[in-house]
Amino acid sequence: MNPRLSRRAARLTSSLIRDILQVTQRPGVISFAGGLPAQELMPNPDFTGLTEDYRQYGPSEGEPALRSLIAQNLSLLGLTCGADQVLVTSGSQQGIDLVGKLFVDEGSPVLLEAPTYLATIQALDVYGAELQGLPLSADGIDPDALRRVIAHNRPAFVYLIPTFQNPSGCCYTDEVRRAVAGVLDETGVPLIEDDPYRDLVYQPADRTPICAYLRRAPWVYLGSFSKITAPGLRVGYLAASPSLFPGLVRLKQASDLHTNRLGQVWLARFLNSDEFAAHRARMIGVYRERRDTMQTALLHHFAELAEWQVPAGGLFFWLRLSADCDTLAALQAALARDVAFMPGEPFFPLWSLPYPAVRLNFSHAAPEQIEQGIAVLGELLSGLAGGVPSRHSRASVSV
Amino acid sequence: MNPRLSRRAARLTSSLIRDILQVTQRPGVISFAGGLPAQELMPNPDFTGLTEDYRQYGPSEGEPALRSLIAQNLSLLGLTCGADQVLVTSGSQQGIDLVGKLFVDEGSPVLLEAPTYLATIQALDVYGAELQGLPLSADGIDPDALRRVIAHNRPAFVYLIPTFQNPSGCCYTDEVRRAVAGVLDETGVPLIEDDPYRDLVYQPADRTPICAYLRRAPWVYLGSFSKITAPGLRVGYLAASPSLFPGLVRLKQASDLHTNRLGQVWLARFLNSDEFAAHRARMIGVYRERRDTMQTALLHHFAELAEWQVPAGGLFFWLRLSADCDTLAALQAALARDVAFMPGEPFFPLWSLPYPAVRLNFSHAAPEQIEQGIAVLGELLSGLAGGVPSRHSRASVSV
Repeated sequence: MNPRLSRRAARLTSSLIRDILQVTQRPGVISFAGGLPAQELMPNPDFTGLTEDYRQYGPSEGEPALRSLIAQNLSLLGLTCGADQVLVTSGSQQGIDLVGKLFVDEGSPVLLEAPTYLATIQALDVYGAELQGLPLSADGIDPDALRRVIAHNRPAFVYLIPTFQNPSGCCYTDEVRRAVAGVLDETGVPLIEDDPYRDLVYQPADRTPICAYLRRAPWVYLGSFSKITAPGLRVGYLAASPSLFPGLVRLKQASDLHTNRLGQVWLARFLNSDEFAAHRARMIGVYRERRDTMQTALLHHFAELAEWQVPAGGLFFWLRLSADCDTLAALQAALARDVAFMPGEPFFPLWSLPYPAVRLNFSHAAPEQIEQGIAVLGELLSGLAGGVPSRHSRASVSV
Repeated sequence: MNPRLSRRAARLTSSLIRDILQVTQRPGVISFAGGLPAQELMPNPDFTGLTEDYRQYGPSEGEPALRSLIAQNLSLLGLTCGADQVLVTSGSQQGIDLVGKLFVDEGSPVLLEAPTYLATIQALDVYGAELQGLPLSADGIDPDALRRVIAHNRPAFVYLIPTFQNPSGCCYTDEVRRAVAGVLDETGVPLIEDDPYRDLVYQPADRTPICAYLRRAPWVYLGSFSKITAPGLRVGYLAASPSLFPGLVRLKQASDLHTNRLGQVWLARFLNSDEFAAHRARMIGVYRERRDTMQTALLHHFAELAEWQVPAGGLFFWLRLSADCDTLAALQAALARDVAFMPGEPFFPLWSLPYPAVRLNFSHAAPEQIEQGIAVLGELLSGLAGGVPSRHSRASVSV
């Protein structure tokens, strides 16, 4: 018997990405596919001596100690914000879902970067958003293009990942950050700023949140502990301007009452401890080394095959392929040789691929595996490309 | 600057209930308001020796060991179900939200009991469901009434809490369970069966899930560990018929990727241990005693003021007041004397109160507090009622 489902259910995207990610977790596969932190670098949580209140139901907004700590940290970044503007979420993915719930009716226009985080595309698709992509250059989006698109197609909000963007690795310059904030203040369009990678910084880069530059426009800032501690705890957060905060809390309450308290209580203690700085420095050191290993391997094997920027932070290289290539077919071939990567297609709204690309994660695999896997991919893509110049090679998008 | 929000956001219900629950958590208040388990009875989780995989991202469906255990337990209840039909959720509240997401468009009719769990009303309101209440008698809903309402107003699904219902404490007889299943099989309307209280059983009662009696109709069974272990862990689950399961998993993934793994891994170990049976027996024993204490106090102080059934399980007494009474005003008066309860209004769809009622939780307060608090409430309500006979006293609803 086929039940009658919501129109929302009919919009559920294919399980292709789920399928890809499941295959890449097969033992023996060198995976550059997911955005997985390295498990061996994660802290070993010590739960002894925690107050036992964490077993009872807790406040929807989150644990007071953690909320205060988050607000203090945001204020240090220039984003002046009280603890009463912080909502602890079940991972920052939930923040994206709550934003969709708060803002999006079927057909609501939403602006985001192209390419962008694929699970944001999925989460907003569920609510029926009409997604429109803003091309990224190495400096960020073009503020003038943003102003034009807003004037033409008044979006419910603009969703950006300005710091070590997923998938492109792009980090907006301070000039672009200020200009984007200016456009949003002018037009009053809300900014959703997703910032999960900010702590993973390998060289100097502008990182002031765009939200910190806003004076009038409403905003939601999405933060994560998954990349710098342990994603399995599922503790993230959002901070929001006062006009948006109460609605987000009520939607959180209706969604899952509150976030698991054990993870929150442990995190509040760990982030406040001396251990944390040492842990972060160690994690950053190892990731920087892996990034550099991948860069060296790419220079060796991909110089003729692709263009890319060295990411100043985050987890990914984004390779714009020089020749036309069916990256989904390439993935099948790579998996047959026990190497995995993410095809570029799913990172574009409506899979409207302006150029062939692949995303390579460098945090999960060990350096020897990185060298070995990149060599396999280089050999494979150079065979597949077969010298056919890309039909996309004149596109204006450069990241 | 006022952002343009979704129509969904405009439907967010008032924060009255949040406000009530916050006040009731003031130190020194004897609270019969929330559905809080007794913290002193919760297990003290021991996290030593767990595999460290729980720190990494995990599968959206949940931890395999916990899913298997859940499927085995459901099969013992007569609900034949594979582990591949089990989805671990961030509390069973998330199951309700996912069901809303999967089924409900603005204006979709949904049938539920009147009264019913207030957070289900809130969660489905968010999606714009048109909620219609089925009156409850001591045996459950009337299967013939169910058939008539389905024929008239084809609902997206029927949501029921057949075992130790919240707020009424009602437990459907086996005859009603089978008859309800028959109507749903005839009509093909999906059943959402919410079953968080089943383990809290104080005397013999029919408890076979209605889902176990279905032969054709699609179903979702929502289960909880919050009442029998520790709600702060936020681990619940759903099981679903094969036609519904894949959509629910994808919606889960878009909502928060997966449920926190630490809680799952610990629960799988605890539920499998010898400790669990002893813990459950102890918790049930204490709650039974508290139920009996409340019953004795009610007989003493409420005999003239209300009608009620002694609940065979669960967490609540539901008192149908004999005289008309503004229960919200009564709550204010009770809080002034440091006693809290839940007014009946929010448990009815659209607050369409067919009779004045209050819900009293008996699991959280200690026996002396129960006696003291019920005495205060009795005195207060007998003063407020002032001998005015209820305008609702002839209503056909008897629970």
